[in-house]
Amino acid sequence: MSATAGQVIRCKAAVAWEAGKQLVIEEVEVEPLQKMEVRLKILFTSLCPGQTPLFPRIYGHEAGGVGEGVTDLQPGDHVLPVFTGECKECRHCKSSESNMYDLLRINTDRGVMISDGKTRFSKNGQPIYHFLGTSTFSEYTVTHVGCVAKINPAAPLDKVCVLSCGISTVFVLEGLGATLNVAKPTKGSTVAIFGLGAVGLAAAEGARISGASRIIGVDLNANRFNEDYDKPVQRVNTIMLYSSSTECAGNVNAMISAFECVHDGWGVAVLVGVPNKDDAFKTHPINLLNERTLKGTFFGNYKPRNDIPSVVEKYMNKELELDKFITHQVSFSEINKAFDLMLGGQSLRCIIHMGN
Amino acid sequence: MSATAGQVIRCKAAVAWEAGKQLVIEEVEVEPLQKMEVRLKILFTSLCPGQTPLFPRIYGHEAGGVGEGVTDLQPGDHVLPVFTGECKECRHCKSSESNMYDLLRINTDRGVMISDGKTRFSKNGQPIYHFLGTSTFSEYTVTHVGCVAKINPAAPLDKVCVLSCGISTVFVLEGLGATLNVAKPTKGSTVAIFGLGAVGLAAAEGARISGASRIIGVDLNANRFNEDYDKPVQRVNTIMLYSSSTECAGNVNAMISAFECVHDGWGVAVLVGVPNKDDAFKTHPINLLNERTLKGTFFGNYKPRNDIPSVVEKYMNKELELDKFITHQVSFSEINKAFDLMLGGQSLRCIIHMGN
Repeated sequence: MSATAGQVIRCKAAVAWEAGKQLVIEEVEVEPLQKMEVRLKILFTSLCPGQTPLFPRIYGHEAGGVGEGVTDLQPGDHVLPVFTGECKECRHCKSSESNMYDLLRINTDRGVMISDGKTRFSKNGQPIYHFLGTSTFSEYTVTHVGCVAKINPAAPLDKVCVLSCGISTVFVLEGLGATLNVAKPTKGSTVAIFGLGAVGLAAAEGARISGASRIIGVDLNANRFNEDYDKPVQRVNTIMLYSSSTECAGNVNAMISAFECVHDGWGVAVLVGVPNKDDAFKTHPINLLNERTLKGTFFGNYKPRNDIPSVVEKYMNKELELDKFITHQVSFSEINKAFDLMLGGQSLRCIIHMGN
Repeated sequence: MSATAGQVIRCKAAVAWEAGKQLVIEEVEVEPLQKMEVRLKILFTSLCPGQTPLFPRIYGHEAGGVGEGVTDLQPGDHVLPVFTGECKECRHCKSSESNMYDLLRINTDRGVMISDGKTRFSKNGQPIYHFLGTSTFSEYTVTHVGCVAKINPAAPLDKVCVLSCGISTVFVLEGLGATLNVAKPTKGSTVAIFGLGAVGLAAAEGARISGASRIIGVDLNANRFNEDYDKPVQRVNTIMLYSSSTECAGNVNAMISAFECVHDGWGVAVLVGVPNKDDAFKTHPINLLNERTLKGTFFGNYKPRNDIPSVVEKYMNKELELDKFITHQVSFSEINKAFDLMLGGQSLRCIIHMGN
């Protein structure tokens, strides 16, 4: 048992008091645990875009920390909190194909814990809402045990903390899993990646691991290339004989282009990203009837508790590169600078050192 | 060698002289063979809808006959001519997944043989065009060897001739293959079939063979049910927890409904059918991102020369029912009656006895 088990902890957290305003580092209270919950000491966190109108709130859902509580975790275990959970009980958890869990499925609107519908954060008695079940912009946070993956204690948390996210257009596991778990390109095949942010680069990494003989990057940002094309995406790509294509741009036209340029007979297109409310994926049915496959993925089809530890091992064995995704480092007190870097498109991933 | 090898044969054929007119039984001349061609004596044929403006022409692409010529066939072999070929040479033939062959892919516009761009049929010196590389509405026809599947000589040709087609909304292999080769439902899963014509019934047969525990039929024709529903298709079906759904209606709205009602996490929708030129498959990307798979199939993904013989064996072993798809029988002289039965929606399949 930890010395603080069962007690309220006072610690620093970056609180979002209102929409569009900078986060404010505050001293908050973190309540003791209810059933099936863990309290984590956050050492490093990172940022992803994505906000919803529920305030005050503690954001953050990429982090590395040390767990307290619950039977399958011991105080001192190294864990990664994950915004999508794995209860190990529902039909989805029991299916080898799905990670769309009934109980712990991602929910950006829910700001409370599942067990009692209350928050574990407060300041001067005022409740402060949770975000994505993780709220890692705090020295200590509380999560459901289903949202925590126990990892190798030798893994450097300031690097592998980037494996704990997945929402939005900019991340590693989603892209890696889109290729390794969903597109599954055969050795020697050609893979096209639409959208060359962090998700797209991770998808390319997955293609490399799969043994693809040719990896083609497609992006609207000409600065990412040495050479530009004056022909439409479909034509250039169709010449290149795809066997699979991974879409990472969260842009519906890019999604449609990615699908239509995969090869007939065996091509697979995998959609990744967060669509807009009014998006429509629109194509002529003949593109499907000619034996193309269209799939989508959430969190790269990884089951977080089950699969993340082995992805961490891939990093430890140098099969997977993570360092290149980390372009900036800031201290907790500079968290708003990390947001500026991300929103300005200057960083892929910025690691926030909590300084504990 | 057959007694007629190398000679012109004179025989009866049902010729389409103009669009929209009845076929006329004529005496025609069938030329000797060029390289990689076979001449077939047609014993039974069946009908599928589908015409293109190239006249005069001999239609027909479902039949059973006896082959002459080419190294891997002997005179007297029992064969099924197939409208889509398998050259055994191209990338598609060599892929385990595709049957979208480069050379012999279905082409409704081509009315000549590939080797020399000429027809093998004529009447009084006037060339008569081929249809779908098969033209089975003739006592004798000529096809490319890649469009002929050699089958068990013990199989009754008046039944298994229905296995030689696949185009359009009404057929067996396409539905069977859509389930067995593409959707691949796991044992105990629930399968929904949209469109209960011959393709849909064959898809249901495939679901039965796969060990599906629940097979749900969906159709706009209320006469096909004992009971009607007043809720939208999606809602009724979603309650029923699909693991895969096979669409056989050739109607783009049915295709979209079939896709949207499959289960998130692991559901697979397989599109079958012939779309209209202006159709658009339109859905919100979230339906894909929630881990549904959308596929299409052509000819049930069967490789005709390689796979049809084993499907015939399934019929011989009573694993596959075909007799129920054959609702009518007519003689060759009554071929126009067979068209009336089909166009009036009164027949699933009508077998035409060539009377040889």
